[in-house]
Amino acid sequence: MNFQLHERLAADTVPVTVGPLSQILLMTDANFPWFVLVPQRPGLRDFHDLDAGDLTLVTQEIVAASRVLEDSLRPDKINVAALGNQVPQLHVHVIARFHDDPAWPKPVWGVLPPKPYDPQELTDRVKAFQTAFAEGL
Amino acid sequence: MNFQLHERLAADTVPVTVGPLSQILLMTDANFPWFVLVPQRPGLRDFHDLDAGDLTLVTQEIVAASRVLEDSLRPDKINVAALGNQVPQLHVHVIARFHDDPAWPKPVWGVLPPKPYDPQELTDRVKAFQTAFAEGL
Repeated sequence: MNFQLHERLAADTVPVTVGPLSQILLMTDANFPWFVLVPQRPGLRDFHDLDAGDLTLVTQEIVAASRVLEDSLRPDKINVAALGNQVPQLHVHVIARFHDDPAWPKPVWGVLPPKPYDPQELTDRVKAFQTAFAEGL
Repeated sequence: MNFQLHERLAADTVPVTVGPLSQILLMTDANFPWFVLVPQRPGLRDFHDLDAGDLTLVTQEIVAASRVLEDSLRPDKINVAALGNQVPQLHVHVIARFHDDPAWPKPVWGVLPPKPYDPQELTDRVKAFQTAFAEGL
């Protein structure tokens, strides 16, 4: 069985980079700077399905994604979560939160519909994140 | 500076056990079997504030807590999250989710008010979890 990105995750994101374990994607929701990390292992559902080596890798990727958000955007908080109630494929959210973002202080899920990025803004943001990950991963 | 459990976390939980790094608490909300892991390090806010050794420890504790929930309750999903938008002290939620729980498939936060446990049920549940953690941590 080969790893294949879940179609819902593919539809809701654009690729940023690939870490030692995970595809690192950006949610196409301009409301929140929001990475989704998807370990490239087939058949995983829960965080604890990862073996010890992969847990170390995904943890390093979570830290790298958090630092990219922190260094580039100076958020007030980073939210990290593996929920997967809607999309069964294991994925980890790493989200920059601000005291004036439209969901604060609630979690971001389901609060409001995704806001499309301006295409140039999206291109610029992905490029800037790619540069930041190249230094940090 | 010494570690001290945040008063809000203390008020909303009962202690279950202590891992190599974290206090492992049970939310006193009978709607959801819900652990909160609080790394006993002063001054931490975000998951990536943990150093490499502590990241390994908390990850092992997340896995242990997930397995305790899975082995004892056979949930449909485990949710893992470090949010901290309301309580600034770093804490990690590990929650057993069921397709028929009152928030499914939404995240649990803010969906409905906490439901008090029956005191005997709470005592029994904590004892059962303590036994399970003693085998797994």
